[in-house]
Amino acid sequence: MNTKGRLYGIGVGPGDPELLTLKALRLLRAAPVVAYQSATDRESIARGIVAQYLTGEQIEVLFHLPRALEPEKAKSIYDKEVEPIAAHLAAGRDVVVLCEGDPFFYGSFMYLFTRLCDEYQIEVVPGVSSLMACPVALGVPFTYYNDILTVLPAPLPAEELTTQLLMTDAAAIMKLGRHFTKVRDILHKLGLASRARYIERATMTQQRIIPLDEVDPAQVPYFAMIVIPTKNRL
Amino acid sequence: MNTKGRLYGIGVGPGDPELLTLKALRLLRAAPVVAYQSATDRESIARGIVAQYLTGEQIEVLFHLPRALEPEKAKSIYDKEVEPIAAHLAAGRDVVVLCEGDPFFYGSFMYLFTRLCDEYQIEVVPGVSSLMACPVALGVPFTYYNDILTVLPAPLPAEELTTQLLMTDAAAIMKLGRHFTKVRDILHKLGLASRARYIERATMTQQRIIPLDEVDPAQVPYFAMIVIPTKNRL
Repeated sequence: MNTKGRLYGIGVGPGDPELLTLKALRLLRAAPVVAYQSATDRESIARGIVAQYLTGEQIEVLFHLPRALEPEKAKSIYDKEVEPIAAHLAAGRDVVVLCEGDPFFYGSFMYLFTRLCDEYQIEVVPGVSSLMACPVALGVPFTYYNDILTVLPAPLPAEELTTQLLMTDAAAIMKLGRHFTKVRDILHKLGLASRARYIERATMTQQRIIPLDEVDPAQVPYFAMIVIPTKNRL
Repeated sequence: MNTKGRLYGIGVGPGDPELLTLKALRLLRAAPVVAYQSATDRESIARGIVAQYLTGEQIEVLFHLPRALEPEKAKSIYDKEVEPIAAHLAAGRDVVVLCEGDPFFYGSFMYLFTRLCDEYQIEVVPGVSSLMACPVALGVPFTYYNDILTVLPAPLPAEELTTQLLMTDAAAIMKLGRHFTKVRDILHKLGLASRARYIERATMTQQRIIPLDEVDPAQVPYFAMIVIPTKNRL
């Protein structure tokens, strides 16, 4: 009798391979199949994080997706990209999907989860998110006591970002990329620029921390974040 | 010549000992002194999470603090509680401070950090936060694409909670405890009750998931969270 394989979505953390959890490492090493996302023209970041832990005998499954894909396009692409993973599960092989950061926090794993959760057993392992890694890398206490924290994707309209920033104690602005100038200008208008900290690729070997006004807008990657720590004093 | 010790603030994650990172485990095992917070009448949760990893030869330093302490009171207590830790550092001994979840995300470690960062070298290790662990334990994809996420401490006034919930795509309401009824009533008024999920002590052996309207308000612990996942469909 053929028993179905089990799907694991494991958070591999923000970049430093040592920020993997013990659980993620155990499941990763035990899995016969390891799947991960890769932009067509680049190495997979998630695979890079765990490269040293792979056994060398694992089947690897890539799914190709442009970054910052619009949801409607993502849906049809995922309907197709999920097939090789489902085939391994149907054949009885466990599959570990590598997820940058945390799987359910702005993670593309959720597209796989919703497509496979009716038919297969799925276990998800939370990971260290960039939301926690960036303030730590910047050395700034982030939120405390009864602070409100708002997480804002930079592609949102300027009015929406402004309204939200006016109403919160602390914020993280993610997915900066080509939206950097818009965000920086808002922060200046709101008097938040002096509190805002900019960081790229936190905990990776290429991590960079740059004063907000010295950032070259043409060079801001998708994996950059502006952290606005609480103004409240400890 | 006496070299000062180094201070490490390590996130030990939400409760499951396997959700410690590899880095936190390495630093924990190497430290001659391990410090942690404990309410005066209870075992330390953070120490319980890592108990199996302690070497048995480490000096343990407790600092006593009531939970949900008001900032003004916390300041004077920390001025005093920091002393034994500073004494170990001054004597050249490294000290690891155990932090539930992540150190800079509503963590009491920040009080130690601000008091010791001028005089001692400090390294902080981000951890898996309950903000990630709760949606995963509930099995609900949390935020995706350009969702706005708002993190709200339950002690905030009802008007503030209401305003914030009306303006966001996804939310986490933390530190529920005796504020549960107020929050539940707001969620019903806003039509969010059917989307809201309640969880206590995520990833711990005592984890409980209860339908919102079956929760006994008298029994809600401090470490309970209501997760409102995005309504957007994947």
